[in-house]
Amino acid sequence: MAATDRVLKAIQAIVGAKHLLTDEDARVRYGQDWTRFFIPAPLAVAMPADTAQVQALVKLARNEGLALVPSGGRTGLSGGAVAQGGELLVSFDRMDAIKSFNPVDRTVVAEAGVITRNLQAFAEGKGLFYPVDFASSGSSQLGGNIATNAGGIKVLRYGLTRDWVAGLKVVTGAGELLDLNGALVKNATGYDLRHIFIGSEGTLGFVTEATLRLTQPPKGLTAALLAVPQMTDVTSVLLAFRAGLVLSAFEFFSGKALGHVLAGSDLPEPFAARSDYYVLLEFEAPDCLSQKAGIQEAAEAAFAECLAEGWVTDGLLSQSEQQRANFWQYRERISEAITAYTPYKNDVAVVPSAVPGFLQAVDKVVTQAYPDFELVWFGHIGDGNLHLNILKPAALDASQFKQQCEAVSEKVMQVVKVFGGSISAEHGVGLLKKHQLHFTRSAAEIALMRSLKQVFDPDNIMNPGKLLP
Amino acid sequence: MAATDRVLKAIQAIVGAKHLLTDEDARVRYGQDWTRFFIPAPLAVAMPADTAQVQALVKLARNEGLALVPSGGRTGLSGGAVAQGGELLVSFDRMDAIKSFNPVDRTVVAEAGVITRNLQAFAEGKGLFYPVDFASSGSSQLGGNIATNAGGIKVLRYGLTRDWVAGLKVVTGAGELLDLNGALVKNATGYDLRHIFIGSEGTLGFVTEATLRLTQPPKGLTAALLAVPQMTDVTSVLLAFRAGLVLSAFEFFSGKALGHVLAGSDLPEPFAARSDYYVLLEFEAPDCLSQKAGIQEAAEAAFAECLAEGWVTDGLLSQSEQQRANFWQYRERISEAITAYTPYKNDVAVVPSAVPGFLQAVDKVVTQAYPDFELVWFGHIGDGNLHLNILKPAALDASQFKQQCEAVSEKVMQVVKVFGGSISAEHGVGLLKKHQLHFTRSAAEIALMRSLKQVFDPDNIMNPGKLLP
Repeated sequence: MAATDRVLKAIQAIVGAKHLLTDEDARVRYGQDWTRFFIPAPLAVAMPADTAQVQALVKLARNEGLALVPSGGRTGLSGGAVAQGGELLVSFDRMDAIKSFNPVDRTVVAEAGVITRNLQAFAEGKGLFYPVDFASSGSSQLGGNIATNAGGIKVLRYGLTRDWVAGLKVVTGAGELLDLNGALVKNATGYDLRHIFIGSEGTLGFVTEATLRLTQPPKGLTAALLAVPQMTDVTSVLLAFRAGLVLSAFEFFSGKALGHVLAGSDLPEPFAARSDYYVLLEFEAPDCLSQKAGIQEAAEAAFAECLAEGWVTDGLLSQSEQQRANFWQYRERISEAITAYTPYKNDVAVVPSAVPGFLQAVDKVVTQAYPDFELVWFGHIGDGNLHLNILKPAALDASQFKQQCEAVSEKVMQVVKVFGGSISAEHGVGLLKKHQLHFTRSAAEIALMRSLKQVFDPDNIMNPGKLLP
Repeated sequence: MAATDRVLKAIQAIVGAKHLLTDEDARVRYGQDWTRFFIPAPLAVAMPADTAQVQALVKLARNEGLALVPSGGRTGLSGGAVAQGGELLVSFDRMDAIKSFNPVDRTVVAEAGVITRNLQAFAEGKGLFYPVDFASSGSSQLGGNIATNAGGIKVLRYGLTRDWVAGLKVVTGAGELLDLNGALVKNATGYDLRHIFIGSEGTLGFVTEATLRLTQPPKGLTAALLAVPQMTDVTSVLLAFRAGLVLSAFEFFSGKALGHVLAGSDLPEPFAARSDYYVLLEFEAPDCLSQKAGIQEAAEAAFAECLAEGWVTDGLLSQSEQQRANFWQYRERISEAITAYTPYKNDVAVVPSAVPGFLQAVDKVVTQAYPDFELVWFGHIGDGNLHLNILKPAALDASQFKQQCEAVSEKVMQVVKVFGGSISAEHGVGLLKKHQLHFTRSAAEIALMRSLKQVFDPDNIMNPGKLLP
């Protein structure tokens, strides 16, 4: 206890007494993310003001053998930001400044604690666009986005967080500050350490600052909502629309998913008849009238082809920004609509062309094992990313349900492996999936990852116990 | 000698007698790249047929303590593929198959020895586009492009080689075969080893196969050639054209560079008066007539603004594909036109917004040190990438010239460092620049790079002596 007091005093000396939280409430709040399977039990919460304080905390932790867990917006779904064993939480809440903007390079220097939505708004204020976007953008922080290489709903057109990171400031587990790549477009000087940190879930070092690229905003976004009875036709629909349009999103959800959304809301049934599957796609139609006409024609031609072939039985093209926003409601409200059913979430990926076959194979495996489980599918199908949610039958005990889901999840991951996919498309690995990593990363890869961990974090103090099995 | 014979026999057993070249001619030809400062002295040239043979060669090399140097198209400009100390060259010339194509995912699986231009042609045959392009595309191989993260003339619009690599097969220095990422768009399962190998110059492992993405081809490319008297106005020109157009290239060259091109060719002087600087830019104008009209209008408005402001004194907009190709001749023939002057090449980068100030600072440093040296500037200014070529005065001895250039190069790299730039934008480090690495990578970074080298290549057999100082 004397040792703990000494450590807490040393932390106070770094961040200031006001910025070290030790009360139960703060420890519980900061000690977990959106994954609700773990019991938070951190030592305390430190809130550094800048990179120098983060560096001082890491050096202290190294000397004291204290484990650190990074805490951003805590919107993770794999337990990557959970502290359950007396770790010190390092919260980036105070490091939320957008420090500079370069209009020629179209880059922003932002601290790790900037909330995604705030960067989006900042870009908009400059007539520009930060395209990484997802359901938790209002809470998630840039540092966390980088640590998990966050994806979301615009990946098809704009790529992942990785593609927007021009430069990084990182404090490694050895307490060294690395200033990686500045904001250079071209820099052919050996191993690009920046890319090792992106997606490393805080296990090698903590990102304290990032230089992010912005781009021109899309013009005249138009959405189409389509009823697609056969999953196997989704690929044909993708090809038909992609032929004449540059798609910025190609999402899908099942009729069951729509059912849950409609049950708890005032949204109207989109078409006369419920379909087994739906596609929501989006494309840019610039506001110059003559151009927009050409693009609308292309969209209508694709729709006509899909109807004639029987791939699509009904469809709507948004005629206004309001209508486009309404279409997205059907897709965006799914997660919330099924929360009451304690869903067991799988976030898996295969190559886009393999999606229909993969979905059928997984459906079969789960249905055979547990015919009474309801499956709700949705996802970013244009990227091959599927979210499979298994709903708890009302009669089943929660812990029994979780056990059964874990058993079936092993079978699902076996299918993922056969299809050459990934056990985690965009949620990361964290605590929740590390025992499944072997399904889609080879033993040699995992051994190399361990060696990299050793290089950057020799004392295993940076988010220990996460990611690696 | 008996040991050498034994090793050569073992290599023959792997690749076949016909595919092990030991004659002087082959050793000289394969032992060097386009960098002409080193004397090739390899042991022999092995030409494996497939990944398994590459893996067998690496295992043999490990057992025998034999150093390996990868040999692709040998178009490198930093000596990355030079073998000057009895190494075994591993040529990828026989591994030149495009193994498969997936039209839905728009991906190609290609062996490391596929020539860049052949992949471009393959893509074109499928109605698609592989956008990484540069002067040596007719000779360079994909494995070499990946090893140096090749850039070129389309980076502004399409990014670097890194951005098109969906997956990699790599044989590490430990002789392990890694199959990295398949062709997944999303895969949030920890450290992305793929990105460590991209740009590693064969020092960690050899790429044997890659899955590359293709995209939609650009439509109706239009080029503009502009006379820009003041270097400091180049940024204003960039902003004026970028406001209404999506630029796919923004290149520049000096009046002196143009002079050399015109001297040795039948190309006409583009404008009535010679300008100190020229900009060559390119944008997409889709072939739908109504759209093209809108885009041409935007281009003409930008041009009018630049003229009115005095940033540009003359300009031409290409009216045909032939004319566009002609404009590019002014830019593409520079390297060849100055070859006779034994140019000392610097390939440096800063952020695009810093280019005018950086160019002036470097000009001053070099001109002060050696007022009789002629400087020829050109480069991919939209990416902040400048090629500074110092021409040898006719009267000066070649080795003396090289010595003086190396001395001034140290001063130039000091300026690069002050501007937060890179000592090598796209040519890599190889043998030529490893002693300059410290200017723009910190001691901590270089130490970490050494540790990574140790992890992937524990016996230091993969392209040893390159990249790291």
